[in-house]
Amino acid sequence: MAKRNATAAVIGAGDFIGSAIAKKFAAEGFLIFAGRRNADKLAPLTTAIEAASGEIVARGLDARREDDITGFLRDADAHAPLEVCIFNVGGNVNFPLLDTTERVFRKVWELGCYAGFLTGREAARLMLPRGKGCIFFTGATASVRGGAGYAAFASAKHGLRAVAQSMARELGPQNIHVAHLIIDAGVDTAFVRERIRQRAGEEALAKLAPDQLMHPASVAEAYWQLYRQPRDAWTFELDVRPYREVW
Amino acid sequence: MAKRNATAAVIGAGDFIGSAIAKKFAAEGFLIFAGRRNADKLAPLTTAIEAASGEIVARGLDARREDDITGFLRDADAHAPLEVCIFNVGGNVNFPLLDTTERVFRKVWELGCYAGFLTGREAARLMLPRGKGCIFFTGATASVRGGAGYAAFASAKHGLRAVAQSMARELGPQNIHVAHLIIDAGVDTAFVRERIRQRAGEEALAKLAPDQLMHPASVAEAYWQLYRQPRDAWTFELDVRPYREVW
Amino acid sequence: MAKRNATAAVIGAGDFIGSAIAKKFAAEGFLIFAGRRNADKLAPLTTAIEAASGEIVARGLDARREDDITGFLRDADAHAPLEVCIFNVGGNVNFPLLDTTERVFRKVWELGCYAGFLTGREAARLMLPRGKGCIFFTGATASVRGGAGYAAFASAKHGLRAVAQSMARELGPQNIHVAHLIIDAGVDTAFVRERIRQRAGEEALAKLAPDQLMHPASVAEAYWQLYRQPRDAWTFELDVRPYREVW
Amino acid sequence: MAKRNATAAVIGAGDFIGSAIAKKFAAEGFLIFAGRRNADKLAPLTTAIEAASGEIVARGLDARREDDITGFLRDADAHAPLEVCIFNVGGNVNFPLLDTTERVFRKVWELGCYAGFLTGREAARLMLPRGKGCIFFTGATASVRGGAGYAAFASAKHGLRAVAQSMARELGPQNIHVAHLIIDAGVDTAFVRERIRQRAGEEALAKLAPDQLMHPASVAEAYWQLYRQPRDAWTFELDVRPYREVW
Repeated sequence: MAKRNATAAVIGAGDFIGSAIAKKFAAEGFLIFAGRRNADKLAPLTTAIEAASGEIVARGLDARREDDITGFLRDADAHAPLEVCIFNVGGNVNFPLLDTTERVFRKVWELGCYAGFLTGREAARLMLPRGKGCIFFTGATASVRGGAGYAAFASAKHGLRAVAQSMARELGPQNIHVAHLIIDAGVDTAFVRERIRQRAGEEALAKLAPDQLMHPASVAEAYWQLYRQPRDAWTFELDVRPYREVW
Repeated sequence: MAKRNATAAVIGAGDFIGSAIAKKFAAEGFLIFAGRRNADKLAPLTTAIEAASGEIVARGLDARREDDITGFLRDADAHAPLEVCIFNVGGNVNFPLLDTTERVFRKVWELGCYAGFLTGREAARLMLPRGKGCIFFTGATASVRGGAGYAAFASAKHGLRAVAQSMARELGPQNIHVAHLIIDAGVDTAFVRERIRQRAGEEALAKLAPDQLMHPASVAEAYWQLYRQPRDAWTFELDVRPYREVW
Repeated sequence: MAKRNATAAVIGAGDFIGSAIAKKFAAEGFLIFAGRRNADKLAPLTTAIEAASGEIVARGLDARREDDITGFLRDADAHAPLEVCIFNVGGNVNFPLLDTTERVFRKVWELGCYAGFLTGREAARLMLPRGKGCIFFTGATASVRGGAGYAAFASAKHGLRAVAQSMARELGPQNIHVAHLIIDAGVDTAFVRERIRQRAGEEALAKLAPDQLMHPASVAEAYWQLYRQPRDAWTFELDVRPYREVW
Repeated sequence: MAKRNATAAVIGAGDFIGSAIAKKFAAEGFLIFAGRRNADKLAPLTTAIEAASGEIVARGLDARREDDITGFLRDADAHAPLEVCIFNVGGNVNFPLLDTTERVFRKVWELGCYAGFLTGREAARLMLPRGKGCIFFTGATASVRGGAGYAAFASAKHGLRAVAQSMARELGPQNIHVAHLIIDAGVDTAFVRERIRQRAGEEALAKLAPDQLMHPASVAEAYWQLYRQPRDAWTFELDVRPYREVW
């Protein structure tokens, strides 16, 4: 693999989509800066990337703290120019309205929206002097739909989408590609399979068609294709879902 | 005017749209509970409503404080059953991305989105036992468009819209009418006229056509019509703009 | 009732929403020009309006024929100035894609979109010299969502919405109020009740809550409120659904 | 180049985007079936593809005729299994509402929407028995916005988008990937450059930044990436615009 003198930062490098994105960009020669709340949980990702001869710096960070975000991205940029920055922090919760505490509402926003703003702004600050870079945000169905029980989550996701759109309009002409991906289904995880089992029974789980759930690597591919777009034909927003998904 | 045994609360009872809504509902016999940051600034509204034989309780409140919101609405409900609750807190700002401090981003959200969530949730809590009520949110162009320079404001407004939509879906079947109004233009105020003068010159200001700017009373009428809708034909969202507006 | 020297034309004056609109505007003093394919079917509407001392001219017309539309509206305008024109032609069909013949696709478009364009354009032509008027279009869920099986219907409804939006932007500044209503549920008709019975059983039908289905008169009220909006606070689009609707 | 036993049909193989798509898929080993109104105008495309050792069948067709569409696609499928079908027929026009004749309105719809329906339906008919295929539709800004003067064009484009969405929902679970691309800017053509010169002057034209206009090949790349998406992570809709575009 040809190494690049470039960093790809993934904030919210969870076990599934975040890790798959990190692996993909590592495989393409980027130095990966991977951050998530619990640094220990990054061990499998680090092992996997290094086993494939990729480079990764794994860090614990609290995405709700400005200092953590700016410190993380500046360090990333100090290792090699920050060329790609992906914000993938989740926080999907569902509560009846009256059970949604102010603490939950605030925390879901801090993780899902405020942290995204801090990430995008700091990445822009580092990229603008070089006039080049990509900033991608992971969205969800809740980014465009406020379903019952999703006051907190949909509010944060709508807010993040507005941040991304505003940034795209301001930064695009300065050659920074900002994009927002609407991931409109669950990825294939033990958690999702268990939920299917509980909701629809063992049989439904056994009858899942091939590729009915999204593989994280397939989702990561969408981020990679966005990275590869020539600047005269950039996409701001795309939806991603498996072929059998009902929407 | 026939008095009703019902309160209409207006959180964000500013000089223009908020005050106009308060006057309209007062004129229809509601007891008005009007709140804004600075209680002193509610004096003209109080005078106007009382001069027209309406009833109003004016209160200062910090919409970003859960206790202020819940206390305000519970007091309102204690005076007379809370039937209408309108969240009209603004906070329009425009900053280049890099100049948008975390403090601004957070404050705009707290005012424009978080306070709306607190308001809607508390109103719902008071209305649900009676199985009846209206909760309306004031939106803006930024509720559906993240323009350059609007990362903070559009994010808050998108977030508020998601709160409203989620509440509408959950509370509608329980006979609570939740609606979101997209106010897509400026109202006729000294501030807006001055901005036109600065941007387009004295002549442009002089040439403003009649009704080219929105009168607050006309906007307030839209809230009143939403209130009057029969429950078998409710509107969740409508846009409002003057006839000459370019959109 | 005070008579106005003004006509309200309803193209697509079907038994439910269209007739309810006609009755409402008749009750407000408008001369009604009501058109639908089969003139005979307008007899009950005529009887009802005349029994209430309203005025109506009922005409059969083929909305897909330019001459029929222009002749109808010119006649209306000759009786009294055309102030309101409402396009309410339906045509909801659902076919699997491969069973959607070119004949169906074309006919649904001609009824649902092309006829709306002809109506709106001719109404504008008559209203513009007087610098005043309202043109309202009936939309549906399919106006904003292309569900499976709705290639023909959703395509026509999306197309009609675009016509309305384009007209609103061009005609608004000339004081013509163009609006589009998204009617997002079924009205209370024998047909709808029968469909519920077939799908969900006799019991589901018996358990329908009060106001769970929309009364045509309630929907008509939304058109009337749009008519009454002052021109400094016009709505282009609003959705209408009953409080218990899942959306 | 490895040849595939597969056809990619391009209906609306114009000089720019359509031809670029054809060249890209030809370069990837597809047999190209290229159709446009005037067969003679396909000569340069044929020459270019054959010079690059690609295979192409060029045909004149009237996209508004069902027989032409079905005959074209069936022939394509007879040469090699139809795996990709791209509908790229344009027809952008702008007329004031009153100058939009019924003839223009109908023709723009027949080209931009009806032909797309015929194309998609016939492609589906051929692909479904093999349980595999891609059907992509070229959209525009007017697909989601009804601007002043665009009653005809936006109506057709909205209608086409609804067809695509309806097809995606019905055919996705049957392993047919349907997508809709919103091409939100002009490509770099003599026509577009001339329009810039007329509107903004010679100087504006001279000052165009590199990549400010879209190269057709860059747009074609987006279609190719859609083709390459794994079925567990399909995109239905994406927007494409150059980095400096104001939107």
